[in-house]
Amino acid sequence: MAYDDTNIFAKILRGELPSHRVYEDEATIAFMDVMPQGIGHTLVVPKAPSRNLLDADPAIFGPLFATVQKLARAVKTAFDADGVVVMQFNEAASGQSVYHLHVHVIPRFEGVPLKPHTGAMEKPEVLAANAEKIRAALAG
Amino acid sequence: MAYDDTNIFAKILRGELPSHRVYEDEATIAFMDVMPQGIGHTLVVPKAPSRNLLDADPAIFGPLFATVQKLARAVKTAFDADGVVVMQFNEAASGQSVYHLHVHVIPRFEGVPLKPHTGAMEKPEVLAANAEKIRAALAG
Repeated sequence: MAYDDTNIFAKILRGELPSHRVYEDEATIAFMDVMPQGIGHTLVVPKAPSRNLLDADPAIFGPLFATVQKLARAVKTAFDADGVVVMQFNEAASGQSVYHLHVHVIPRFEGVPLKPHTGAMEKPEVLAANAEKIRAALAG
Repeated sequence: MAYDDTNIFAKILRGELPSHRVYEDEATIAFMDVMPQGIGHTLVVPKAPSRNLLDADPAIFGPLFATVQKLARAVKTAFDADGVVVMQFNEAASGQSVYHLHVHVIPRFEGVPLKPHTGAMEKPEVLAANAEKIRAALAG
């Protein structure tokens, strides 16, 4: 299936939709998931268009996962997490709902299960506060 | 925490433990997860030592995720899957149990949930047959 540039992450990349952005470099951006499965749930998105990992140009993977590593370290520090899970979904059967490649980076805590992906929106002020903690950890 | 080279994936990399290997290149190997969360559950492992993504040399991410992409495409073809999930766990709180960086590549099917990571071993003949399907898809 062909990439469709009307998806919401393409709109965020073009600045047509807002996001709680925490990081940007030449190849990638990172911003808060508005329907988090846990505190500090962040998305890392390559600027290059592809539907998911299956059709991506492998040349983007180095810069993409360098940013994933930066964010994994930053969210662990920002929320004093015990661990971090990195997830990437390909096609609807795996849980993909936005068809621009993205990587989920989610802090994990002993004994706290991930929330299901219910579609419930987090309050903007909570996302803004969490984004600020991640920016501080990235700068620290 | 320092990398400990007595972990089972280090032993597989050194040939001290067997595996149902489906792919190898200069930087990576891929083999069947012996406690699969679904049919065709494969692990992609960099040869370079690190505990997980947090302490890895970012230089390995390009080759590592190029192999993840190859395997994601291959398992989708081999098992006629509807989707593929890619997961990577950092520290015990996130589900990590072997402390050599590895990436889970799991075929997904509409309406079929992932099995929990129970620790139940799959039959060797089943793993061998699934490995053969993946090798065929990689060669095709």
